[in-house]
Amino acid sequence: MEFKKKKLANGLVVIGEVNKSAKSAAVGFFVKTGSRDESKQINGASHFLEHMLFKGTERLSAFEVNEAFDRTGAEFNAFTSEENTVFYAAVLPEYLVEVTELWIELMRPALRDEDFDIEKNVIKEEIAMYKDLPSYDVLDRCRSLHFDSHPCGNSILGGEESIGNLTAEQMRGYFTNRYAPNNMALAFAGNFDWEQVCTVVESPCSKWQKQIASRKLEDYRGSKKKKRVEKSNLAREHICLMSRGVSAQEPRRFAASLLATIIGDNVGSRFFWELVDKALAETATMQFGAMDGTGAFCSYIRCSSENVSKVLDTVRGIFESLSKSGVTKDEMKTAKNKILSALVIKNELPMGRLVDLGFNWIYLEQYRTIADDISAIKAVAIDDVNSLIEKFNPGDFTQLSIGPAQSS
Amino acid sequence: MEFKKKKLANGLVVIGEVNKSAKSAAVGFFVKTGSRDESKQINGASHFLEHMLFKGTERLSAFEVNEAFDRTGAEFNAFTSEENTVFYAAVLPEYLVEVTELWIELMRPALRDEDFDIEKNVIKEEIAMYKDLPSYDVLDRCRSLHFDSHPCGNSILGGEESIGNLTAEQMRGYFTNRYAPNNMALAFAGNFDWEQVCTVVESPCSKWQKQIASRKLEDYRGSKKKKRVEKSNLAREHICLMSRGVSAQEPRRFAASLLATIIGDNVGSRFFWELVDKALAETATMQFGAMDGTGAFCSYIRCSSENVSKVLDTVRGIFESLSKSGVTKDEMKTAKNKILSALVIKNELPMGRLVDLGFNWIYLEQYRTIADDISAIKAVAIDDVNSLIEKFNPGDFTQLSIGPAQSS
Repeated sequence: MEFKKKKLANGLVVIGEVNKSAKSAAVGFFVKTGSRDESKQINGASHFLEHMLFKGTERLSAFEVNEAFDRTGAEFNAFTSEENTVFYAAVLPEYLVEVTELWIELMRPALRDEDFDIEKNVIKEEIAMYKDLPSYDVLDRCRSLHFDSHPCGNSILGGEESIGNLTAEQMRGYFTNRYAPNNMALAFAGNFDWEQVCTVVESPCSKWQKQIASRKLEDYRGSKKKKRVEKSNLAREHICLMSRGVSAQEPRRFAASLLATIIGDNVGSRFFWELVDKALAETATMQFGAMDGTGAFCSYIRCSSENVSKVLDTVRGIFESLSKSGVTKDEMKTAKNKILSALVIKNELPMGRLVDLGFNWIYLEQYRTIADDISAIKAVAIDDVNSLIEKFNPGDFTQLSIGPAQSS
Repeated sequence: MEFKKKKLANGLVVIGEVNKSAKSAAVGFFVKTGSRDESKQINGASHFLEHMLFKGTERLSAFEVNEAFDRTGAEFNAFTSEENTVFYAAVLPEYLVEVTELWIELMRPALRDEDFDIEKNVIKEEIAMYKDLPSYDVLDRCRSLHFDSHPCGNSILGGEESIGNLTAEQMRGYFTNRYAPNNMALAFAGNFDWEQVCTVVESPCSKWQKQIASRKLEDYRGSKKKKRVEKSNLAREHICLMSRGVSAQEPRRFAASLLATIIGDNVGSRFFWELVDKALAETATMQFGAMDGTGAFCSYIRCSSENVSKVLDTVRGIFESLSKSGVTKDEMKTAKNKILSALVIKNELPMGRLVDLGFNWIYLEQYRTIADDISAIKAVAIDDVNSLIEKFNPGDFTQLSIGPAQSS
């Protein structure tokens, strides 16, 4: 494994981890923009832009973009989160140059009015579809409730209203700032030739204009509000709990991952044994989300209406016992094994490696080997996790539930 | 990469491909049994058995099985198809021995009456749940219609009736024959020590008794029947088309995969451009399934009721044009790139490699390197695909649709 890095004059950082024993290669643009960078007026613009990039450039129609990806046989896609928009592809090494050239071209899209109008309907349908998925809707609403006025509370897809009112002009303005070369990183992983990709990147990307692109960075303690929403078509109660966690820049992020695994991993966690295995809840998981300058623990529980109060009592009991007695050595060992195998297995594939490589750069401006992360996880002591519980008490949460109308 | 192989006196074959540069290791039992090996009376027994293996052994309770997997941090699971039941896990190399010992123990389950009775309800719920998924239900019904009296027409989950009537005694009888050491293979892939795993395997697995376990192998041309089922709760038409393909033992299986990709890949295929891109259908895909001694092409299309006749006309047009003019050079090139990158990316991970390694042994008693498969795909000529169309005319299909009641 060899790490390579280059910065163009306009601020675009190109990084790569060469692994000559890999059989494939992956490339991705990591754009440091997401829903938290949007004003309320243009909420949803980042995700909308992600769609628009596939609509083509001055030279290529959407049809031709599709065909061009097709020819390379690439596995490609894109995603938008609260704070990043990522475009990536995994290919056979001999097609890496072709697919990289294509992504570079797409990073300067035409953003045509006609395409914008058509795509607006696609986005509206997507919003409606996700509104119908209670497991997604509950998370979206809970994030808003928890982060309140903090921009991390913005919905990723945007709302009916903000998307309805969004103009192509506003989108182009947002694009110019946020897709500036100094606000993104281009990453490569797997089997590729560094000098070759640098040659491919340099000339077209150097033409991109540097811009001022900033982000408000504030930590947030969470609103701790409680709210329940009734939806007549639901048969189950969906509960989302959020509490404050550490940021993506914090060394304690590894301890926070361990804590979330101990409390709410799919199987074998406290939630699993006390809620799922006892058939009180159908699902009960907790995840830790490390973000730019802030972070959150987020739990999702689905259960029958009859079980709601028992479930919440049990959850409270779990958090109280953690505050009182902390986690056990056995729990630490199991959680470490789970996180380590997931990490190693994910990073074994150039595509998985690309994501960690890119995010480590975006958040830390740091190259971290897999071995660095393995050591950091192994080094977490039981006291690190227990002092995290003390400091960030996960029992002190914002709560949003969606469920059927309550019979009185 | 180094291939290793060992056969125990009772017929159990142990194979492994050692890749010292891998960061993880994978292990899996490939049991040559599935719904096609069941009589109508015990239909669903293979899938039921897959569940029962996690219920524990004479020594371990279900709780302890769960905990034991948990400790290793393994990513593990199992699946049942028409002809195989596979149990697998991916772990950090240092936990491979522990997780292998666990799988070996589970391969001789207690199959307790109490567990059987409880699990029967879980299976019944699973059957009901899948009945509610039209994309699954249509495939299940179409397979029955297409294979008619051929055992490949058996449902994998079994029916309400066969599962309802199944006794623990029947299951234990089925188990004894089908889980015989001479009817399975144990495979390892990734970073592991061959001598060490052989030591772990030899003593417990040698105690397993050889049995007579055979399978009826007949090719089948397909019934070519047409049928439509009405379901009042559906808003869309779900159409499944099946036609005869080549078997997993046939060298022409690579040409058959290319043909299915050209006709019905998710994007960029004939189905995509003529049905999905033109908004006639919401989804339209074709897959090729190579089976033991037989094979099938299977298409799935979802569209609105108004569009059904247009969709079927278009499908007929696509098949006619293929029969008349064959595929194009460009289509061959694109399809090869897609299949090659999917193959390479999948096999880069020990877990993905394990599956190909195991199935190549189960179907061919052959070790094939990734390079062997790459060469075989690259070597397919346009005439190979075109003669396949001529011989197996995909337009000559069995058709099953599920959709809403038709207004008269």
